[in-house]
Amino acid sequence: MALKASELEVGGTHTAVLVKDLKRTQLVQYAGASGDYNPLHTDDFYTREVAGYPSVFAHGMLTMGMTGAMLTDYVGDGRLLKFGVRFTAQVWPGDDLEATATVEALREEGGEKLVDLKVSTRNQNGDEVLSGYAVARVDP
Amino acid sequence: MALKASELEVGGTHTAVLVKDLKRTQLVQYAGASGDYNPLHTDDFYTREVAGYPSVFAHGMLTMGMTGAMLTDYVGDGRLLKFGVRFTAQVWPGDDLEATATVEALREEGGEKLVDLKVSTRNQNGDEVLSGYAVARVDP
Repeated sequence: MALKASELEVGGTHTAVLVKDLKRTQLVQYAGASGDYNPLHTDDFYTREVAGYPSVFAHGMLTMGMTGAMLTDYVGDGRLLKFGVRFTAQVWPGDDLEATATVEALREEGGEKLVDLKVSTRNQNGDEVLSGYAVARVDP
Repeated sequence: MALKASELEVGGTHTAVLVKDLKRTQLVQYAGASGDYNPLHTDDFYTREVAGYPSVFAHGMLTMGMTGAMLTDYVGDGRLLKFGVRFTAQVWPGDDLEATATVEALREEGGEKLVDLKVSTRNQNGDEVLSGYAVARVDP
């Protein structure tokens, strides 16, 4: 399951579908799992009438969590060392999300092989909703 | 609910308990919510007998998600612009976690007031399990 440095090259990419037709139920599930019960993610009445948004929207951390699952699927278990993102647009119920990791560098640090990845998650319109980077350990 | 720049000073901190006695059930909930069904987080037999760990352990992204919930509770909705972490130790069932955000700087960029935060999450032994940074918008 673990990624090998010999399987990677700078510029190589890995893309995965994170979700098709995101459901409000997944936002409720994420609220329960994370403890983030902000009503903007689960209460359409509050979100539209009080807060003035067109509908509930996904926790940024849910988008980050799904993108993180793509990364750990790709690099292997327990190998993700760093992960940082910028939240660039909101994610709405009904959205499809796809994430791409691009190999930016292969390097060694403290006797370990590391890969630097650029990360981008986009919706069905091609709009980027999250951009970031990750660093993971890889086998020789 | 939104944080004001006038309420902040460099060196000020905000601390919150993320979880007391983390349950295996929460790992199952997080797997369902995020789509990250790696058995290392939910299957004790596999994790001990096949993978050689002492027990299942939390998704790093769950620790990050709970820490992110602390940040959005603190800074207010839709104000978290960037969040990056380093995963420094594993989180096990039964752990208590507490996270602290420390104000590192207050600044303006593109006409917006921003706060730079240092973020640290520790377990009941004082071991840091996650360290990172965040950038959020604040009101004047």
